[in-house]
Amino acid sequence: MTVAGLSARRDKALGAGAALFYRTPLHIVRGEGAYLYDADGRRYVDMYNNVPCVGHANPYVVEAMSRQQATLNVHSRYLHEGVVAFAERLAALHGPQIESVIFSCSGTEANEVAVRMARFATGKRGIVFTDATYHGNSDLISQMTRVSAAGSKNPELRAIPFPQTYRPLESGLSEAELCEAYLARLAAAIADLERDGGGFAALIVCSIFANEGLPDVPKGFMARAAEMVHAAGGLVIADEVQAGYGRTGGWWGYDVAGFVPDIVVTGKPMGNGLPLAATAASRALVEGFRAKTRYFNTFASSPLQAAVGMAVLDVIERDGLIENVAAVGGPLKQALAERQGGWDAIGDVRGHGLFIGVEMIKDPESKAPDAAMAAEVSNRLKDKGFLTAPAGAHGNVVKIRPPLVFSQADAEAFLEAFDATVAELHG
Amino acid sequence: MTVAGLSARRDKALGAGAALFYRTPLHIVRGEGAYLYDADGRRYVDMYNNVPCVGHANPYVVEAMSRQQATLNVHSRYLHEGVVAFAERLAALHGPQIESVIFSCSGTEANEVAVRMARFATGKRGIVFTDATYHGNSDLISQMTRVSAAGSKNPELRAIPFPQTYRPLESGLSEAELCEAYLARLAAAIADLERDGGGFAALIVCSIFANEGLPDVPKGFMARAAEMVHAAGGLVIADEVQAGYGRTGGWWGYDVAGFVPDIVVTGKPMGNGLPLAATAASRALVEGFRAKTRYFNTFASSPLQAAVGMAVLDVIERDGLIENVAAVGGPLKQALAERQGGWDAIGDVRGHGLFIGVEMIKDPESKAPDAAMAAEVSNRLKDKGFLTAPAGAHGNVVKIRPPLVFSQADAEAFLEAFDATVAELHG
Repeated sequence: MTVAGLSARRDKALGAGAALFYRTPLHIVRGEGAYLYDADGRRYVDMYNNVPCVGHANPYVVEAMSRQQATLNVHSRYLHEGVVAFAERLAALHGPQIESVIFSCSGTEANEVAVRMARFATGKRGIVFTDATYHGNSDLISQMTRVSAAGSKNPELRAIPFPQTYRPLESGLSEAELCEAYLARLAAAIADLERDGGGFAALIVCSIFANEGLPDVPKGFMARAAEMVHAAGGLVIADEVQAGYGRTGGWWGYDVAGFVPDIVVTGKPMGNGLPLAATAASRALVEGFRAKTRYFNTFASSPLQAAVGMAVLDVIERDGLIENVAAVGGPLKQALAERQGGWDAIGDVRGHGLFIGVEMIKDPESKAPDAAMAAEVSNRLKDKGFLTAPAGAHGNVVKIRPPLVFSQADAEAFLEAFDATVAELHG
Repeated sequence: MTVAGLSARRDKALGAGAALFYRTPLHIVRGEGAYLYDADGRRYVDMYNNVPCVGHANPYVVEAMSRQQATLNVHSRYLHEGVVAFAERLAALHGPQIESVIFSCSGTEANEVAVRMARFATGKRGIVFTDATYHGNSDLISQMTRVSAAGSKNPELRAIPFPQTYRPLESGLSEAELCEAYLARLAAAIADLERDGGGFAALIVCSIFANEGLPDVPKGFMARAAEMVHAAGGLVIADEVQAGYGRTGGWWGYDVAGFVPDIVVTGKPMGNGLPLAATAASRALVEGFRAKTRYFNTFASSPLQAAVGMAVLDVIERDGLIENVAAVGGPLKQALAERQGGWDAIGDVRGHGLFIGVEMIKDPESKAPDAAMAAEVSNRLKDKGFLTAPAGAHGNVVKIRPPLVFSQADAEAFLEAFDATVAELHG
């Protein structure tokens, strides 16, 4: 079936408007490790997908999934040791403030739990989020996005500008002053909610502001923000769906950002493709939530989620994937940063571990975002066999976020393709 | 590990308050077909679980899951023929008004899509639901439950009494008059929403009112209700998470109930345990939703969901499971109804196909619900090797809802255990 034919069938079956990547969509039929293959057998280096964190079709995970589904997969109102052991292992990857886990099937569901948990615990309603973020697709959580930040009429939600040094909130400030400026916005949002938003319950952030475009954040901002939140009686929710699970070269994005969250949300990479997410917090927070809701999630806390989730952790540890992230990601970011001087369209290179953003701009003076150029770069890299996609607050950041098994050789091949793309576009 | 030891570990890891069935919880370690096995090797006939619809550990489904996960499992922004084919096959199981599908990971997510779709399509906000239902666990959907019906302050939601003949809304009415009485409540809720609830967007019902306790509904109610909804410019959402996929002895609960929904939500049995749900509607409704939201669900519309979902449909059709439901369920309900005369505590026996409820009451005159007796019956049946659980608006209905592979021999063994339980409790 041709790409055009399949696209037309898809438009009817799923409804037109179900997004596809690239000018000419890819018809992918197979994956292995860090590679995807299209229907013509062409290989692509996957530099976009964080879900298959231990590699596409990882055989150890396939085997765990297969074995458990052939043994038992049932809901959580029976005792199952695997589920308990997985929750224990996950909690132990955090500091002592994280004790108990509520499993669910998606980051959206896990963020729903987190926000409602914070509201129950504080008895307050107001939630602060950053203004170019994305935390999920439900009625409540989808209001906490860039799309809604301007237009939302929900009196219990307040957006604040995400912290960054590249396009600072005010010009002419030192980094310390800039930090204060962002903190002042948080303080104002909290005060505003206390006045007429049902009180202040929580600040929710992606620990590395991934959807915003991986900004460099004024030093100390998140630690100070967490202090401010706690002083106001609120809780800090770290959305680690993108930031966590080794992505940054350590277990958690909040370590990079330098703060200690009260509630941690994880998702995408947890099941290497099996729907699996979690909300982790103190036992008191979790039990408070359970008492209020009698929360039950049909497919979650299942033996299948546990077996697959355990297998993913096994592989991350056994294969030293977090060390691989640091070893490959650091030099890759450095190499890209070196390209910056050679082409004015590259405004900035940012990120942590194997999550790197290349910000495309129209000129260095205005720093005007160039989303069209980011799309162009991404499409040309795709044509050369490397999969990235535009992202960021202005859609002008080429997002590089490969499976954790992405190798040094992959990185070197990518840099050649990147240089060739620069040569085509810049000359 | 002992049940007590594992329970204590579970209370810490998942937080106390994560529900467990039965006075002494079951430690289940293996499943096969309609059977579950505990850690001591004891076999239980599973008469509760609708998720493993084609049987626990069904080998055809395990093979499909395993093969696809070993081949490709990736998000939906690449073309994939399997995903398109699954959506086409699912839509074709409905009437011509259902054309397109949005996949998600849970019934909660699918109901979120349905409610938001109805709001976008109508430009109105108000949702009517029945007062002892359950549609999911998110912030929005969890407000549409019995728990919230009395106390919810959400001005956009209205609960109406669920239709039933056993404890009618008003006494002394003919069935036709009773139908009018329930319809009058729906009309009042719609009018109320039009006055001060942001207008009327949709009626959402479980097509067979499963959580209410599978009531016998006044003849023609749902067809008239759907007419009334459409006349008011609203949409009808059929929550087929429990009612659909062959459960009633036909594909859909709305056929049993005699109405044609605008939006259909499916979930639990679709993936035989893999998180998989769907919202299906006309192409115009689906595309309207996509245009408003740019909806994307990381784990949904995946090759894995499609392969497993297809395998489940294959087995249902290949093994004639819907025919099995009708063949086994009808006589089982009849046999249970025959027990009713012999014990006053059995107030009613209701249901469709392999979804039967036995309503326990304190006496036939008052029909006072006896939740303690339903729990007692369920615990004693468990001790005899048959798994059921109490349910219904008053928690007094013994819910019988086995995998669709449940056999005539299983039913006969169950009836013996049921009779023995009656003999113990009634004498």
